[in-house]
Amino acid sequence: MNGLHLTAELYGCRCERRLLDDAGALRELCRAVCSLPGLTPLAEVFHQFGDSGSPAGATGAVVLAESHLAVHTWPESAAVTLDLYVCNFSQDNSRAARQACRQLIAAFAPSRCVQRELERGIPTDGTTSDPAGRSD
Amino acid sequence: MNGLHLTAELYGCRCERRLLDDAGALRELCRAVCSLPGLTPLAEVFHQFGDSGSPAGATGAVVLAESHLAVHTWPESAAVTLDLYVCNFSQDNSRAARQACRQLIAAFAPSRCVQRELERGIPTDGTTSDPAGRSD
Repeated sequence: MNGLHLTAELYGCRCERRLLDDAGALRELCRAVCSLPGLTPLAEVFHQFGDSGSPAGATGAVVLAESHLAVHTWPESAAVTLDLYVCNFSQDNSRAARQACRQLIAAFAPSRCVQRELERGIPTDGTTSDPAGRSD
Repeated sequence: MNGLHLTAELYGCRCERRLLDDAGALRELCRAVCSLPGLTPLAEVFHQFGDSGSPAGATGAVVLAESHLAVHTWPESAAVTLDLYVCNFSQDNSRAARQACRQLIAAFAPSRCVQRELERGIPTDGTTSDPAGRSD
């Protein structure tokens, strides 16, 4: 289950407003990005905040064979958060993940962006605990 | 969009096998956890790997008003990854998130667990870049 998890906070997004407001537009973007080689979309869920008359942002997740993409928009702040987690179990999907993340960021066109990379599934990172008190 | 993102890698899960194998069981657990006060499930998506005759793990995501929960299982490794991201925009949902994470971990009963907490939406953390070259 070793993998790469990319996170991004996007501020001052200069994209078309519809991409921040509308779940349908967000879905189209996510589908386009997840159709890249190396990502295998399995199912998706998107939710519209507000309504078609007064859209107020969207949230969505695409479950991938490689793990998941999650996107949340805050149109009132022109802000977006992204999460793209890919498992590198059978092959290295890191390159596809980074490319997808770049495409998403480019689509939202933020004036400022905070990105992180987390290695997932590495037993020695973070706080390790044995809830049962059993030794390794 | 400030928030808290909890991640966990669970190893040596001693729960009933069905919870690792079956998307329906995973869904029930996630629904139960997301029904806790402080979390507002909006929509969900779960995917079964393998089939009912030979289930091979599950993956799922619940989009929340507060952001999202994502869970992936690797039954062949008795391993699970969890992500629970809550936005603290209108109120502090951190307590609800930590409680939910504890409940999920307890349900899977890992012999070892690696947990992290990320602050999301904090402009000075991580690598800050201005893709357009514009100054702050």
